[in-house]
Amino acid sequence: MQPEPATSALAAAVREAEEGVEEGGMPFGAAIVLDGEVIARGRNRQVQRGDHLAHAETEAIRECIERYGTVPAGAVLVATEGPCAMCAGAAVITGIRSVVVGEVHHFAGAVDLLRAEGVGVQILEDPICIDLVTRFRAEHADLWQRYSAG
Amino acid sequence: MQPEPATSALAAAVREAEEGVEEGGMPFGAAIVLDGEVIARGRNRQVQRGDHLAHAETEAIRECIERYGTVPAGAVLVATEGPCAMCAGAAVITGIRSVVVGEVHHFAGAVDLLRAEGVGVQILEDPICIDLVTRFRAEHADLWQRYSAG
Repeated sequence: MQPEPATSALAAAVREAEEGVEEGGMPFGAAIVLDGEVIARGRNRQVQRGDHLAHAETEAIRECIERYGTVPAGAVLVATEGPCAMCAGAAVITGIRSVVVGEVHHFAGAVDLLRAEGVGVQILEDPICIDLVTRFRAEHADLWQRYSAG
Repeated sequence: MQPEPATSALAAAVREAEEGVEEGGMPFGAAIVLDGEVIARGRNRQVQRGDHLAHAETEAIRECIERYGTVPAGAVLVATEGPCAMCAGAAVITGIRSVVVGEVHHFAGAVDLLRAEGVGVQILEDPICIDLVTRFRAEHADLWQRYSAG
């Protein structure tokens, strides 16, 4: 079953990515949506925190767990780029069954791993997400080079 | 190339797992070793912290990054059980190329994912690791049931 496009959640994820860039960080954001409502958000904080594991998706999952003690059944993870292998694994172990991805041109991540685990993945090819990273790569080539691998 | 068995690092990982159990948590420990020296340690803190993402391997990787700013090239991750998909992904994105696993009877994890990414995996079938989880499952069946999936 394909998840709904979850456009308000994508807007929340994009806003997280934009705020991350305003903080001097990477342009990756995520949100978790349940029944159309955004219940958690996260942004990549690798640069801000010096923590290579502080990815947008794990930050959103962690916020969700802090609030609800778990990721509620039926929750959808929305990410501006393809989740990496760590974030895909975090989605799998917390029972997330649907992931919506803004775009995969700049960072495809581990979409195949999610699908192999039976997680539904919808790729939006969203022009705002594509533009966000295109601009970031042009303006912050050094940061992209240093941090986009992880 | 197979990594060395890294027995002192396995002992450190086992000690982390044991201390986790003493704290009321799960019996999973990890250590990172470089040139025979243990440079970081971690234990599963899902129960202690209420954080489903606080796995032994990610805790060890995070401690390593806090100390050195990165996971040094050549570092080996040693874990008492097979790392889950999230932890395997965290190893991949931090450049870890060798993983030593205490045993895989109780929790095989995502060893296949690591190997698919070209990471060397050595499985020790260590009797201390096997016994640690065997005893834990007998004495704490409720916790095992609740937390061993993630």
